Amino acid sequence: MKIICTKSQLLSGVNTVSKAVSAKTTMDILQCILVEAQADRIKLTANDTELGIETYIEGDVVQSGQIALEAKIFSEIIKKLPDSEVIIKTEENGSTSIDCEQMHCSIMGKKGDDFTHLPEIERDNRIVLSQFDFKEIIRQTIFSISTNENNKLMTGELLQINENRLTITSLDGHRISVRNIELSDSYPACEVIIPGKTLSEISKILPGEAEDTVNLYITDKHVLFEFDQTRVVSRLLEGKFYNINQMLSTDYETKIVVNKMDMLRCLDRSTLFVRESDKKPIIMRIGQDSMDLMISSQIGSMKDTLNLKKEGKDLVIGFNPRFLVDALRVVDEEEVSIYMINSIAPCIIRDEKHSYLYLILPINVNNSGY
Amino acid sequence: MKIICTKSQLLSGVNTVSKAVSAKTTMDILQCILVEAQADRIKLTANDTELGIETYIEGDVVQSGQIALEAKIFSEIIKKLPDSEVIIKTEENGSTSIDCEQMHCSIMGKKGDDFTHLPEIERDNRIVLSQFDFKEIIRQTIFSISTNENNKLMTGELLQINENRLTITSLDGHRISVRNIELSDSYPACEVIIPGKTLSEISKILPGEAEDTVNLYITDKHVLFEFDQTRVVSRLLEGKFYNINQMLSTDYETKIVVNKMDMLRCLDRSTLFVRESDKKPIIMRIGQDSMDLMISSQIGSMKDTLNLKKEGKDLVIGFNPRFLVDALRVVDEEEVSIYMINSIAPCIIRDEKHSYLYLILPINVNNSGY
Repeated sequence: MKIICTKSQLLSGVNTVSKAVSAKTTMDILQCILVEAQADRIKLTANDTELGIETYIEGDVVQSGQIALEAKIFSEIIKKLPDSEVIIKTEENGSTSIDCEQMHCSIMGKKGDDFTHLPEIERDNRIVLSQFDFKEIIRQTIFSISTNENNKLMTGELLQINENRLTITSLDGHRISVRNIELSDSYPACEVIIPGKTLSEISKILPGEAEDTVNLYITDKHVLFEFDQTRVVSRLLEGKFYNINQMLSTDYETKIVVNKMDMLRCLDRSTLFVRESDKKPIIMRIGQDSMDLMISSQIGSMKDTLNLKKEGKDLVIGFNPRFLVDALRVVDEEEVSIYMINSIAPCIIRDEKHSYLYLILPINVNNSGY
Repeated sequence: MKIICTKSQLLSGVNTVSKAVSAKTTMDILQCILVEAQADRIKLTANDTELGIETYIEGDVVQSGQIALEAKIFSEIIKKLPDSEVIIKTEENGSTSIDCEQMHCSIMGKKGDDFTHLPEIERDNRIVLSQFDFKEIIRQTIFSISTNENNKLMTGELLQINENRLTITSLDGHRISVRNIELSDSYPACEVIIPGKTLSEISKILPGEAEDTVNLYITDKHVLFEFDQTRVVSRLLEGKFYNINQMLSTDYETKIVVNKMDMLRCLDRSTLFVRESDKKPIIMRIGQDSMDLMISSQIGSMKDTLNLKKEGKDLVIGFNPRFLVDALRVVDEEEVSIYMINSIAPCIIRDEKHSYLYLILPINVNNSGY
């Protein structure tokens, strides 16, 4: 194989596929990037068998062929090359030379015959999304997946299509995050659970321009994302996702409207008083026009007061302040509405249009003397 | 005690003294910042008994007194306060309230009677330095101190005054870094060894403006740095520093002049082929108008060619590329001169004016077949 391309093309391609290189594996081949040159196309692929990414880069194919290169050293070398033309050439034994200006280096590659290529995905049903929207809803929900592999389904996010509405849901047993977006077209209903890692990596490599789109193809076992010169294939998580509908009641006894930044700053400050070993709640004492926020732990105590608009009953309720911070951080509105029923039922932060909903379970503070 | 000051004054003071808070200690009091309010002065102090820093901040003293507050939580709280006026007030039992706008919080402090104050340093002999120069020469030499506590003296830097010349020297057994600056006045000769940690912390808190100065006072056991509203006192390292003069020969058999950035980029790239377990040298094969740089390890191999001007003999010599990178990174000149004698004697990178000198021991490559 012999190819010629620019450093910038190569670097961008390597950065894209690197997201699917296996971090911890005993199989050497999973730590490699496969470089394939055929006709006039140069393709880079990485695949950890859960998540696979391939991308095409521009360049000249002088001699077709393929080579699997250890991703870490290959990408480090490319990163440090001069911003110039790069020639990659392989020998029969796998030895691969990289030439750029007067620099010549050589690393050992593998023929890559045992490389796991991306599975072929049927392209019958295409769903078209805005890159920007998709990247945003991942950011706005990914924080509430579970990292506990024992609840496998909770490590993923539910993606549902219903006509022209796409809903993405994540939950970790303490809270639920839901985002809805409108699609330009209507599609047959479907629902799949996508691993959190897939979504988090894809949101890093999606350029995310509002006018650009990403195509989604869903099969029984896989989802394929296609955008620009890149294809990302991920296994789906198998199983039935949690039914959350009964929790998302629109009834409420207390509704408050607060300035988001004021509340966020106050909550953020209160997290200083929370230690891993001593998860003290922030207690919100909601009155007519204001609420007191209080936290008290071994470290010390804090009290702050925020102005608000209230409908319904006064209420005293406690939360893990970090959960409120996570949700408020990804809400773009200047003012947020929070709906509550009583001190042991979850609160719901949502807008009128139902574009977002964040549900957080309270911490029982009935016996705290507030 | 009751004081009123702005958040920004308080934060700047806390950030300054925090550098002397002990990171690992079993003595609680060493992890505290002492706040003292007397007459119209508010003083913050931290002291890990090797290094101590005190600084004055502006503010009103409503009631004089003192309190020792756990540095970590105190500084985290201050950081997250609104940018407004802060009131700090202590109770008889050490309970300390911090009020800012509507936020009220409370942490437990200590009376601080067992706090170790900074030692009194005689201010007889003042040495005046430019803040900028001092900060620069620390940056330009600190990388070659040793981190091995078994060679205690090597963990510090030698500071020498000779008339109007200040010299700072660091070494780690593999290399030596020397920087010289001219002072505006002449002073009696003196030489002390200052702990590397002191210099590294001081370079972080020195604003470093060219027109501002820092005053140095040296005693048998201590050095005091005084600038703006801040005093830094450090213990000195006791002992006789290594005599390096016999190593700093000005004789040479080969002198090369190279473009610094070209050489730096090439060396930086070559470090990719060095692994902790396999410290392969970069081999420089110096010819008439150019040199080849080569490295070869388990990871792969690299070869590059740089143009240069040469005086004297051709030479093949090998180095740890990271040591060359460290030295070249802190040289400001566009071209550097490197002086060598043979393949087993150290190379010296220095300028004509002797403002800097970097000596690096070679790695023997006689039997490598180059």
